[in-house]
Amino acid sequence: MHKLPKAVRQLIEKFERLPGIGPKSAQRLVFYLIHNPESELEDFAEKLIALKRDTVLCKICHDVSDHDPCSVCDDPNRDESVLCIVEQSLDVIALERSDIFQGKYHVLHGAISPLNNIGPNQLHLKDILDRLDGVDELILATNPTMEGESTALYIKELIAQERPEKFEELTITRIGHGLPIGADIEYADGVTLARALEGRRQL
Amino acid sequence: MHKLPKAVRQLIEKFERLPGIGPKSAQRLVFYLIHNPESELEDFAEKLIALKRDTVLCKICHDVSDHDPCSVCDDPNRDESVLCIVEQSLDVIALERSDIFQGKYHVLHGAISPLNNIGPNQLHLKDILDRLDGVDELILATNPTMEGESTALYIKELIAQERPEKFEELTITRIGHGLPIGADIEYADGVTLARALEGRRQL
Repeated sequence: MHKLPKAVRQLIEKFERLPGIGPKSAQRLVFYLIHNPESELEDFAEKLIALKRDTVLCKICHDVSDHDPCSVCDDPNRDESVLCIVEQSLDVIALERSDIFQGKYHVLHGAISPLNNIGPNQLHLKDILDRLDGVDELILATNPTMEGESTALYIKELIAQERPEKFEELTITRIGHGLPIGADIEYADGVTLARALEGRRQL
Repeated sequence: MHKLPKAVRQLIEKFERLPGIGPKSAQRLVFYLIHNPESELEDFAEKLIALKRDTVLCKICHDVSDHDPCSVCDDPNRDESVLCIVEQSLDVIALERSDIFQGKYHVLHGAISPLNNIGPNQLHLKDILDRLDGVDELILATNPTMEGESTALYIKELIAQERPEKFEELTITRIGHGLPIGADIEYADGVTLARALEGRRQL
């Protein structure tokens, strides 16, 4: 049996562990890299190490950032009265791209998922309670998946239990669900169509 | 406009340059890595640097290896009289996996491709001439693409010109083309079918 050099095998293993990269792609990536100059590989390695070294989690919203507090939390022009809860930093980027949200964020870094051993204590959930003063609306923008829905419900219950006086005056909303723009009703699944009908608005 | 931390952006750029990884996948990979412990990133970085540091190109066949000469060139049980020319190291792995070839290899590290500025001098072509003594059959196993076919023809011409006496006695073959096992004749393209008919064998 022909064996690949150890250094090649070990790097293939590293790439294989990344999400969405199978053994074949990992092999292809490593043999692509082997044709790069050594300086390019060193640069790649340095950038990998810098990823955690040069970034921090914002202590207020827990988003990944250059500095603490992050640029959104630090921005006096953002609306303090609207707080949007998301699962991941990538969701913040997606929402910022839409250019319509002017409030603040709170990044949970996941969603409640008992199957994956992720409970409320593994997420940045509890300190939402400390951020509610001055907030009029809480938008629950977790994903429309089983985990995201349970997390949204959990947050609502948590506030109802722990801060009942605030719960009375706070508007808690869930991000809208329905047909994505550009989609085809013909091909939409039943759950999405049900949500789209529930969420219909007067024209 | 919300900006990602510099360290995150720079690593995304590195991943984007890899073949088959677009901007979205690169983003996803980096945010996956950011949730890994720092030691894991350092280990990944070390493996990247080791890739070139701990591998060599075999001076005989130019395959990527732990040592020079590589395990195939160094193996006295391999048949010296059959030489198989391939484009890439990955082709060696694929052929070794088939477990039928017992000869030696020669890795070109590419194929002639004028559009990509790859001429004969960018490939390990010339030293095939020095490896022909004792060889009875030369199998040209470059890819069945325009570039692979031209490279195969070029090698044949090169030997005819530079070593006419050897060219007379040498059997030069091209790896067989036709339908892959498990394929459907109904969906096969015309060129493949034409090659499959040309390459038909008595049952």
